[in-house]
Amino acid sequence: MTAPTSPVVLLLSGGLDSTTLLAIAKGEGHDVYALSFRYGQRHSHEIDAARRAAEAWGVARHIVADIDLRMFGGSALTSALEVPKDRPIDTRSEEIPVTYVPARNTIFLSFALAWAEVLQARQIFIGVNALDYSGYPDCRPEYIAAYEQMANLATRAGVEDTGRITVRTPLMAMSKADIIRTGASLGVDYAATTSCYDPDANGAACGHCDSCQLRRAGFLQAGVPDPTRYAAA
Amino acid sequence: MTAPTSPVVLLLSGGLDSTTLLAIAKGEGHDVYALSFRYGQRHSHEIDAARRAAEAWGVARHIVADIDLRMFGGSALTSALEVPKDRPIDTRSEEIPVTYVPARNTIFLSFALAWAEVLQARQIFIGVNALDYSGYPDCRPEYIAAYEQMANLATRAGVEDTGRITVRTPLMAMSKADIIRTGASLGVDYAATTSCYDPDANGAACGHCDSCQLRRAGFLQAGVPDPTRYAAA
Repeated sequence: MTAPTSPVVLLLSGGLDSTTLLAIAKGEGHDVYALSFRYGQRHSHEIDAARRAAEAWGVARHIVADIDLRMFGGSALTSALEVPKDRPIDTRSEEIPVTYVPARNTIFLSFALAWAEVLQARQIFIGVNALDYSGYPDCRPEYIAAYEQMANLATRAGVEDTGRITVRTPLMAMSKADIIRTGASLGVDYAATTSCYDPDANGAACGHCDSCQLRRAGFLQAGVPDPTRYAAA
Repeated sequence: MTAPTSPVVLLLSGGLDSTTLLAIAKGEGHDVYALSFRYGQRHSHEIDAARRAAEAWGVARHIVADIDLRMFGGSALTSALEVPKDRPIDTRSEEIPVTYVPARNTIFLSFALAWAEVLQARQIFIGVNALDYSGYPDCRPEYIAAYEQMANLATRAGVEDTGRITVRTPLMAMSKADIIRTGASLGVDYAATTSCYDPDANGAACGHCDSCQLRRAGFLQAGVPDPTRYAAA
């Protein structure tokens, strides 16, 4: 159904997951339009990582959108709250962590939807993951399904016969180790990706936040050498 | 179920519809948190109208968010395309007009959802209208229902027992004349509102775009004097 070189919009944070996602989309032969956000996050060095990934994988275009989510407050990633360290990672937890940014994926997907409509792209790629989602409500498959339903009513696709929009989540059911194995087989340079919620001034990972712990365990489990640059203790 | 002074988030453009919406929400006794957007629209004088309305109706807080939708192109409201003038208004039309901004309401509602989650607000007010929607897909009741469904899966409401989020659309089934009659009865000062897609440098309405035509016909039909300041022909 989908032409092999059809345009797709892909949300690219510059982290391990979205960089693997980019490799998968390119592997499918798409023209990738990558979208990143400067949203007031502490770890704005991830924008640099996104630019590196976009260049390395030859995207058709990369837009970095400025949206200041700090205006609403409410998250350790965008306000002065402390990022939790060295807490036990239970990926089955029902508790929403303090690092959750309210409605972040909904906002990101909505910008992607706007761009997709302008490009007449029919697919939006997002690197959400249900297994390692750390309790974020907007990383669950039922959320993505509801978003897709809404997206098809929100746009020309819902009125004109332009073909259904799909939200692609190839990482949804993968473990962190699966993601790393997949990316490694596609040639992802994980040294260039960043995952830490609280890196030091030079961009070195803290090694202790939820995201660092998941990433480190993933490399270990995948049997792939961990190229992450950790801050000296 | 809802406490009379519960916080609500309300999308306020400064136009006739959203100012009436604000009067309705205040009439219900809510603490209104009003949200406006500077999104690269030609008619940025509507931000001034939004500020006047927010002040006149005593909102709890008014945020004007900067999001530059021009980066994606694709609409006469945000790019260099010509705004259509003096075309016959057929509100039953299935054709999407050139003034449609891709995914605009989806983006606006997503910011409202983020703020609602931080405020623990359970209601979001948006002034969409199915009768006068001029063919915009994101003004239809089935779109709003799908958005609400998605919103409840996107947020803490979907995981924790915090109460369902509702998207309130009291104008949905009203004609423009109904809206004007309702607002007039609540004391809305329509001279302070703006609707024109292509006003002159002094903010005077063109009188000929779709929005001006609908507004003018609405006052006529409502039997309410039209206080709109039109540009000299």
